[in-house]
Amino acid sequence: MWFMSDFIASREEEFSKWYLDIVQKAKLVDYSPVKGCMVIMPYGYAIWERIQSVIDDKFKESGHENAYFPLLIPYEFLEREKEHVKGFSPELAVVTTAGGEELREPLVLRPTSETIIWNMYSKWIKSYRDLPIKINQWANIIRWEKRTKPFLRTTEFLWQEGHTAHETSNEAQEEALFILNLYKKFVEDYLAIPVFYGKKTEREKFAGAVSTYTIEALMQDKKALQAGTSHYLGLNFAKAFDVKFQNKNGEMSYVFATSWGVSTRLIGALIMVHSDSKGLILPPKIAPIEILIVPILKKDDDVNKKILEYATTIFDILVKEKFRVEIDKDFKNSPGFRFAASEFKGIPIRIEIGSNDILMDCVTVARRDRDKNSKYQVSFKELLPKIKEELETMQCELFNKALEFRNSNTKEIIGFKENDYDLFKTYIKDNLGFVLSSWCGNEVCEENIKNDTKATIRCIPEDFQDKSLDNVTCIYCNTSAKHFVLFARAY
Amino acid sequence: MWFMSDFIASREEEFSKWYLDIVQKAKLVDYSPVKGCMVIMPYGYAIWERIQSVIDDKFKESGHENAYFPLLIPYEFLEREKEHVKGFSPELAVVTTAGGEELREPLVLRPTSETIIWNMYSKWIKSYRDLPIKINQWANIIRWEKRTKPFLRTTEFLWQEGHTAHETSNEAQEEALFILNLYKKFVEDYLAIPVFYGKKTEREKFAGAVSTYTIEALMQDKKALQAGTSHYLGLNFAKAFDVKFQNKNGEMSYVFATSWGVSTRLIGALIMVHSDSKGLILPPKIAPIEILIVPILKKDDDVNKKILEYATTIFDILVKEKFRVEIDKDFKNSPGFRFAASEFKGIPIRIEIGSNDILMDCVTVARRDRDKNSKYQVSFKELLPKIKEELETMQCELFNKALEFRNSNTKEIIGFKENDYDLFKTYIKDNLGFVLSSWCGNEVCEENIKNDTKATIRCIPEDFQDKSLDNVTCIYCNTSAKHFVLFARAY
Repeated sequence: MWFMSDFIASREEEFSKWYLDIVQKAKLVDYSPVKGCMVIMPYGYAIWERIQSVIDDKFKESGHENAYFPLLIPYEFLEREKEHVKGFSPELAVVTTAGGEELREPLVLRPTSETIIWNMYSKWIKSYRDLPIKINQWANIIRWEKRTKPFLRTTEFLWQEGHTAHETSNEAQEEALFILNLYKKFVEDYLAIPVFYGKKTEREKFAGAVSTYTIEALMQDKKALQAGTSHYLGLNFAKAFDVKFQNKNGEMSYVFATSWGVSTRLIGALIMVHSDSKGLILPPKIAPIEILIVPILKKDDDVNKKILEYATTIFDILVKEKFRVEIDKDFKNSPGFRFAASEFKGIPIRIEIGSNDILMDCVTVARRDRDKNSKYQVSFKELLPKIKEELETMQCELFNKALEFRNSNTKEIIGFKENDYDLFKTYIKDNLGFVLSSWCGNEVCEENIKNDTKATIRCIPEDFQDKSLDNVTCIYCNTSAKHFVLFARAY
Repeated sequence: MWFMSDFIASREEEFSKWYLDIVQKAKLVDYSPVKGCMVIMPYGYAIWERIQSVIDDKFKESGHENAYFPLLIPYEFLEREKEHVKGFSPELAVVTTAGGEELREPLVLRPTSETIIWNMYSKWIKSYRDLPIKINQWANIIRWEKRTKPFLRTTEFLWQEGHTAHETSNEAQEEALFILNLYKKFVEDYLAIPVFYGKKTEREKFAGAVSTYTIEALMQDKKALQAGTSHYLGLNFAKAFDVKFQNKNGEMSYVFATSWGVSTRLIGALIMVHSDSKGLILPPKIAPIEILIVPILKKDDDVNKKILEYATTIFDILVKEKFRVEIDKDFKNSPGFRFAASEFKGIPIRIEIGSNDILMDCVTVARRDRDKNSKYQVSFKELLPKIKEELETMQCELFNKALEFRNSNTKEIIGFKENDYDLFKTYIKDNLGFVLSSWCGNEVCEENIKNDTKATIRCIPEDFQDKSLDNVTCIYCNTSAKHFVLFARAY
């Protein structure tokens, strides 16, 4: 396809440009003519399909079903939940004309689907026998964003949104946490991204939620990224849409709700956590192509025929073992160019097959996350176990590397009587990363810290539960602390 | 979930109501508060997921890749292709306000994506090396329809749209026909719906196409339904978006295009071709649940325990064999109610397990498309081969039944010198169905026939190629016929 220069900006000096270069060179997205909307190109979409396929299976295994609700929502629906409309109004796109006529009532493009779904649930839920409902939807979402960046924040994006309905508060809260845990496991096991998890503060929670739970990851520029959220909505939407059921005692009760989602933003996280100066690095378990076989041809047709046969034999063996594998047939370009192309795309393992290799009944194996001098020959017989081992090791090492980076950029600056807010400020300014600190629970302190440092409370983490709050004070106001909290500057 | 009465309208007397009853009772869709937009409920969506999964594999096997393009399209893009804008303008939904501000340029919700995609192709295609591009997209589509009906015609629907770019006209035409054939095979093999296939007339073709190819099915009310289309677009969109490539001789040439799609409409076809007075009938290959195991409990706990164990054993065996199988646990309702529920949903095979069955080491097997007195006992040992056989037979018999219906409702009324247009008119009025007839190629005749009979030319079929046009005249004007054509009243 269209040509792009080899140059990738320095990750250390120009992180933002580095990110955009990788996105372009790996052919993940392209800019569209509509401001803030991206085109997800085949290779980027293939990553999304991998994510969808794994998560969708997990949803179904745990009793969730997929459905599809309308894109267009009457504006009046949003207004029924006060916090919800306040949160989403500024970002709405509105259809005012359709079929050549002005609409009597404007329709908004879904910025999220709680309202239209709870309107339907009011028809579907009559009795405790109808509960729980656990529905998920894969859909496009429109939020009119001022500043956009591919995958991280775009006017249109793709996501899944789960919407469940329950008899009791307990059951709904369990569901919200079950999903949070499912997200955490998925992001850690498949995307090889370690996350902190916990509750959002009142200020940071979803517009319309009682509680928002989040998973938070650290990017290589030491900024945090919210990677998925799960909301306990209490009775807010049941009340807004008058959704009641007859309980086992014959009384009418409101229905408890959750909602939760992850989006194409996860691809942004993947890029910013693992990639390097040569391009994308994909963890094997999520890579659309785990192994690329690169036959290197010479001028001798007989030799070339043997090389291609050898490549096909290996391809067939790997396909049979259910690996996602391709043969590179870009013979018009030099081996160096082709190797670089596979590195741009972050393919975990490259198998090079040249005339010397086949003479020795060998291939050359290169791992994407290793130095280029570390590639080595493997005999045909040893190849399959070796490939399995390398893929597992790479998955593991990428996670460990990211974990080490995250941990070494997570600093404790807890408030005590002799607390030093200046230390906190200076640290965040100079180092970024996560700061585990302590907070009184007052929104004014939270706001002031944000104004001073641009850092927000990412979550009240579940990760440091063994810590005692005795004698601990708010890092800002020095009164008794109510929570340990994780601060960071974030995307 | 919510309760619905047992009553299904008579298919013979009130076909339209019968259709809507089935859609509701099988819980496929529900009406949404937004006019003309449907909610696709979990069971309906599960059918769509089956369709997606099978077709998507076929696309990928034949070298197509998925991608995602923006929902929002600048209105000006549509205007660049004259026929295209003329065809789609009346159905557009337009976003005029977003993020609290009026947009400088209105954005339309995609009624189809040729324009936005060819705008991107103009960036991506520079040389013959960039060709072919074979991209597919799974997406939601908005067309403001006046009269809507679940699955058949709704303001929003889900579909796939393929958009390919080629060096030569030949290659593009081959692609359009390759996909038409893929659709035909899929609809016949999986949905068990026989289709005629061929070219649309100029009057009926896609707005912006050079040629439109179609597959046409016959519903049980003897009206035709267009089930999928594939368009050869020639250079129309390449010229509108100035998409040129450097060919092998170094010259700049325009790029040839195709586009093609099938939608959630296929689910409407499934219902209208196979279902009966008891509800939906799904061909096994597309059914989300092929087999439902219904344990029938008594008042004896020990016996019930054995029945449930027996059910679980059979479930495990069938799951291991990759059947899509579920156990019905709706013990609060009577067996009769539960059988009827499985019939509403069109599940191909029901396995009933009661106390008498397990005493004899047997189960009772009922096939959805057979009379209720035809259910029979099968021994545990015989079950697996029997189930396999029944599913295959049922798939085959549903197709054959639909084929026989279609053929017995396809009448030849060819024009000759002594042609009788009155016969044609009377036949269509009294019998509906397909009429194979002959046509001079003049749009005026086509229009007049439509005005007289409400029948349109569904296609110039490829199915009757052995027929000779010697001495054949246009059924309307009696001049020399250019084509055999299939007429029908259609959805």
